[in-house]
Amino acid sequence: MTILDIIEKKKNKQQLSKQEIEFFVNGFTAGTIADYQMSALLMAILLNGMTDEETFAMTTAMLNSGDVVDMSALGDTVVDKHSTGGIGDSTTLALAPILACCGVYVAKMSGRGLGFTGGTIDKLESIPHFDTALSEQEFFDVVKRVGCAVIGQTANLAPADKKIYALRDVTGTVNSIPLICASIMSKKLASGADTILLDVKYGSGAFMPDPQSALELATKMVAIGTLAGKRIGALITDMQQPLSDHVGNALEIVGIIDVLNGKRNRLYYEIREVALRLLALTGKYTAQTAEQAFQRAIDSGAALDKFAEMVRAQHGDESYIYHPDKFEIGQKDCVVAARDGYVSHMVAADIGRAVTLLGGGRLQKSDAIDFSVGVIMAVSLGSYVRKGDVLCEVYHNNGKGLADAKRLISDAITLSDQQPQPHKIAYAYVGKDGVELY
Amino acid sequence: MTILDIIEKKKNKQQLSKQEIEFFVNGFTAGTIADYQMSALLMAILLNGMTDEETFAMTTAMLNSGDVVDMSALGDTVVDKHSTGGIGDSTTLALAPILACCGVYVAKMSGRGLGFTGGTIDKLESIPHFDTALSEQEFFDVVKRVGCAVIGQTANLAPADKKIYALRDVTGTVNSIPLICASIMSKKLASGADTILLDVKYGSGAFMPDPQSALELATKMVAIGTLAGKRIGALITDMQQPLSDHVGNALEIVGIIDVLNGKRNRLYYEIREVALRLLALTGKYTAQTAEQAFQRAIDSGAALDKFAEMVRAQHGDESYIYHPDKFEIGQKDCVVAARDGYVSHMVAADIGRAVTLLGGGRLQKSDAIDFSVGVIMAVSLGSYVRKGDVLCEVYHNNGKGLADAKRLISDAITLSDQQPQPHKIAYAYVGKDGVELY
Repeated sequence: MTILDIIEKKKNKQQLSKQEIEFFVNGFTAGTIADYQMSALLMAILLNGMTDEETFAMTTAMLNSGDVVDMSALGDTVVDKHSTGGIGDSTTLALAPILACCGVYVAKMSGRGLGFTGGTIDKLESIPHFDTALSEQEFFDVVKRVGCAVIGQTANLAPADKKIYALRDVTGTVNSIPLICASIMSKKLASGADTILLDVKYGSGAFMPDPQSALELATKMVAIGTLAGKRIGALITDMQQPLSDHVGNALEIVGIIDVLNGKRNRLYYEIREVALRLLALTGKYTAQTAEQAFQRAIDSGAALDKFAEMVRAQHGDESYIYHPDKFEIGQKDCVVAARDGYVSHMVAADIGRAVTLLGGGRLQKSDAIDFSVGVIMAVSLGSYVRKGDVLCEVYHNNGKGLADAKRLISDAITLSDQQPQPHKIAYAYVGKDGVELY
Repeated sequence: MTILDIIEKKKNKQQLSKQEIEFFVNGFTAGTIADYQMSALLMAILLNGMTDEETFAMTTAMLNSGDVVDMSALGDTVVDKHSTGGIGDSTTLALAPILACCGVYVAKMSGRGLGFTGGTIDKLESIPHFDTALSEQEFFDVVKRVGCAVIGQTANLAPADKKIYALRDVTGTVNSIPLICASIMSKKLASGADTILLDVKYGSGAFMPDPQSALELATKMVAIGTLAGKRIGALITDMQQPLSDHVGNALEIVGIIDVLNGKRNRLYYEIREVALRLLALTGKYTAQTAEQAFQRAIDSGAALDKFAEMVRAQHGDESYIYHPDKFEIGQKDCVVAARDGYVSHMVAADIGRAVTLLGGGRLQKSDAIDFSVGVIMAVSLGSYVRKGDVLCEVYHNNGKGLADAKRLISDAITLSDQQPQPHKIAYAYVGKDGVELY
């Protein structure tokens, strides 16, 4: 078997065997297959596709290239939620305590952000003394005792994916559904949860440009997860606007505390949808009992207490959870409407970029993050505003990046005379038994 | 413009502009475009194709990457013949003197062989003192005085092609008709002839597996040559058996001398077909006058004298042309028929490989060539033999490579009860006005 034989087969639209797929994944990771050969193969895969069997074999080969986290000590129901990249997506931070209150473990190893705002780990570190670097033993202890914990990813998950992704990024081979699927699922399957909800975004700035291609990707990922023996489903959601009105690091924690305090905003309904889907996926809840359990966790204050308990267990200052006004927030400025009209379109990615300009995200791995900056959206899609109304509060640190950020946000929000279609929480849900449209 | 934009366009089946094609050809040649990006683009081109306009732009960009030979000093009719690789293909050596006798210049810069037997230059060097390294001035002087000359290629023709071909060879991107066309035509157009006959081979071991794909390649090359203002046509021929019964270096010169002496064998009819097509292409001959001129050149002995004159002009010992028994030839052995039957199939490439094993070809650029070895086929497709009849005479030097060569030749010749279809000189001819089937 040589890499040229494998390229030849894929070029001629033949199905690759498990052995052939392991050969090129392992060979490229080990450096025995040259990058120029791998990129030719990746282009052939992009143009000629891969079957579910091939995608599963590639996912498995990539996940086996590194550590595979064993969560069997936590029993048979550890849930995970994965988003393909959203702006203001802090849902994990609310889901963890809510689901823990429903008797389901959330043991989340999360990444740091690059490009837009900080990642989940950065957001948590805006809580003073919060420790995202627990040892594996301590991490499991917290999950068992509290029901949830969130730490930074320490395991060497799917190094083959890192190497392949770096090559795809510079060879025009990113937008292939089987390759995106293998990339995401190899890391997801390596990280140990047995029940997984995927949030597949579409729209400008997302991997998938439209709902149809997002649906295709979601269907493939659910098939691969199911083949791997996981309980798995996927929501298809748009990236038309930030998921939360609060975008930033400390600001997103404040937004989450609002939801746990029972504030019924857009973020609340998004979190509710994800939570109900996850609870149903575990097999321990029906649609109805899931809804009751969710409502009880929020309304009783149990979820907020659970969040505080997790913060304390991870050595953070829980007083911030009950007194979010303690968070240090930058100086306030505003972006205002230049005309009357409906908010008809937003470039969510540019709002994320604006927060990075303020200092709230990283352009390079080594950049430090300013937790205090960010934005609070005063409007969402469909809002009607008059000229001069506030569209967005901008929190900055002594004006750093302010002018550019304001210009970017102003350009990212379109006002027009037409009222847009009402926003839906999701476009579709993909379970192992099929697709459900919203 | 970036290489990623160009990959994206070709991936999406869009036509690339002349500027975009120049950008990637020049960038890759200069080393500013990485090989892993170029290989991804080449795979996208292989799978999504290129229009004639794109192929012409790529050919032109590649030919402009190096020297372009100017033969205008030789007037307006300099002819060239190019084969896409045959075994025992020494037609050029007979064509040069024959065409010169017909008043047409042949100024041939030729390569050395790699892989099978030696190239045209190696074959000529089996004539003692023959000089294949004339200066350009001396070369043109010989052409003007004698009508023909053959030297080794000194000009730096299409270096972009060398670099791109080396990458294609290791990335499974060889068998693309536009890429093969651009590779061949960039060198052909850079080498200065204004009238070109292509001999496009098909069959095992050739670039093209079947007559249909060879026809497709030939049609594309004729279109590109015509766009470049050349008089050009292409013969589609098979590689089912060696072109000449004589395969080797000195042996092929002997075979050519036989033809120039008027021997009517298969090689003679092949050479005649190519010569008549080339004479008609120049526009100076009709089919009828071409035939008369060809016959006169052979029958009068003028072509043999012209060959001797060229050899003398290039400092070679012309006595060998009139006394071919002077050539030093190895010791003779034979491959005999293992059964009665018709010669129904030959793997021509393996007969070439056998000659290399005997020392008559190069496996590496630095290998020395033994001019004295080779084979003389005693049969051709359709011959009937009895068990023990000689299939092939094998000329070796003290047994070097003999056993392996004999085994390879024996395996390469299939004997069966069925008489095969009669052999045709060519499958089709492609001119600028269309295709003519034989």
